[in-house]
Amino acid sequence: MEISLPGLSQFKEAAARISPLVHRTPLITCTSINTICKAALFFKCENLQKVGAFKARGAVNAVFSLPEEVACMGVATHSSGNHAAALAYAARCRGIKAYVVMPENAPAVKKTAVASYGAEIVFCEPTLKAREETIDKIVRQTGSTFIHPYNDYRVIAGQGTAALELLNQVENLDAIIAPVGGGGLLSGTALAVRLSAGADRVYGAEPAGADDAYRSLKENRIVPMENPNTIADGLRTSLGTLTFPIIKKNVNAIITVSDDSIIEAMRLIWERAKLVVEPSGAVPLAALLEKRSSIEGDRIGLILSGGNVDLKRLPF
Amino acid sequence: MEISLPGLSQFKEAAARISPLVHRTPLITCTSINTICKAALFFKCENLQKVGAFKARGAVNAVFSLPEEVACMGVATHSSGNHAAALAYAARCRGIKAYVVMPENAPAVKKTAVASYGAEIVFCEPTLKAREETIDKIVRQTGSTFIHPYNDYRVIAGQGTAALELLNQVENLDAIIAPVGGGGLLSGTALAVRLSAGADRVYGAEPAGADDAYRSLKENRIVPMENPNTIADGLRTSLGTLTFPIIKKNVNAIITVSDDSIIEAMRLIWERAKLVVEPSGAVPLAALLEKRSSIEGDRIGLILSGGNVDLKRLPF
Repeated sequence: MEISLPGLSQFKEAAARISPLVHRTPLITCTSINTICKAALFFKCENLQKVGAFKARGAVNAVFSLPEEVACMGVATHSSGNHAAALAYAARCRGIKAYVVMPENAPAVKKTAVASYGAEIVFCEPTLKAREETIDKIVRQTGSTFIHPYNDYRVIAGQGTAALELLNQVENLDAIIAPVGGGGLLSGTALAVRLSAGADRVYGAEPAGADDAYRSLKENRIVPMENPNTIADGLRTSLGTLTFPIIKKNVNAIITVSDDSIIEAMRLIWERAKLVVEPSGAVPLAALLEKRSSIEGDRIGLILSGGNVDLKRLPF
Repeated sequence: MEISLPGLSQFKEAAARISPLVHRTPLITCTSINTICKAALFFKCENLQKVGAFKARGAVNAVFSLPEEVACMGVATHSSGNHAAALAYAARCRGIKAYVVMPENAPAVKKTAVASYGAEIVFCEPTLKAREETIDKIVRQTGSTFIHPYNDYRVIAGQGTAALELLNQVENLDAIIAPVGGGGLLSGTALAVRLSAGADRVYGAEPAGADDAYRSLKENRIVPMENPNTIADGLRTSLGTLTFPIIKKNVNAIITVSDDSIIEAMRLIWERAKLVVEPSGAVPLAALLEKRSSIEGDRIGLILSGGNVDLKRLPF
């Protein structure tokens, strides 16, 4: 893990490092959503990113930052979500092994996605203890490098490249909003925006049913989420020791939103902007739907973080 | 109506004329769909176009081609689909009236869409006779100009600008595939590609349950569709007197596909490419799914023609 906080040069190095392996995703505007929000919105389409989520950026940056003698032993993580698929993708690109620890009861669709990128899945009992013991054992036995989903500066720098791109694609933004779960995307976004002086304000958008970032900022310490309850399955995790201080220093506010607003935002993005976005990716628009008055006339960038949904289980 | 077949300069004029009012839509690639089709596919995202479909191009070109003294009397059409919304949008942009004739039994969602762009809707009985009588009466009474959904060279030139853009966004295409209903998009695409020598082959993709273009080319005369039966609601119309000869001369073949393939293609585009596409827009990919062997290794542009679907009535 890189020891020090990424500077602008780390973000630019990350962007150059990952550019052959990730998409420069398009920026989409949608007049009818602008009318509803009374603002000019710019959707950064990370749902169209490799593996269907911004996570490809951080994982590729981390995997390709490893020296050859370390990389050849493989990489490992515990996740049943987009980071697992992203790490598997990054490892396959580099021609190394990826070990992914998943609870036995993970949905079949997630197992299939990770397996399709060629990772070796190691199942464990669905407890935190079993997960940590299993990943420790794998790292010990294989010599692979553990890549945390968000509490890693290489990952944070990779995720921040989406905001750097966004700032190159549109001028004069008043604000950027990113969803916040573990904080990898939000901390990378906030740092990249501050370092490049790219927009006045950076907001995190968080489900009310997993509002650990909101509470952590309020109490000025990491308050982990005990029993998250939200449709936004990518945002149930809690801030980490690296992401919390970056967010505390560089994010203007965390806006919490109801699941009803998340579903409404998701429906609008599908129906009006014609983009398949997962619940987590709709959270920034949900924040705007709940806070219309204070953004009137603003130019706002929103990171549509991912598009991985089960079409058989839609909330509308 | 312009009397003569559009040349390359008409297409370029159309592109310049409409550019302030339509999106330059992105071109998207999707590795997992490429793997399935064993080809390199480039999706031209007209589902992300204004009004959610390529129809905005033709309608804007037609409306903005009218001399001021003609335009000020308004425009009119009969359609309950994307052309109606597109004409309403174009008229609103020019600040003139749009009259849209629709059968009384058109779905509420379509009435709402057209009304939301500010058109005056005139209802008629759901028969061809009532529709034609109603539009004739409106044109006579208002002095408005009838803009046909596809049998109009200004419309054809406008639709062809999507292919021109596509050819600017990617090099060395072996083929381009567009869906075919009345033939406005396909004839515009084929002409634009031939005139700019932009790709070797142009194909039309058509539902087997509305295969009038396939039959018309086979019998060398316009064979209208009597009772179209397909989920692809935008492609139930038949070729026109202007579109048929262009297609006959410039299109390599019409590929017909089953509704099952259309639904499978639609599901792939939603699930893998994360794009909301309507059944008609998935027809080109359906054609590739049915014809895998003959396209192996090819670079193929597909026009995702539109994304207007009712999320409450999905086929999967």
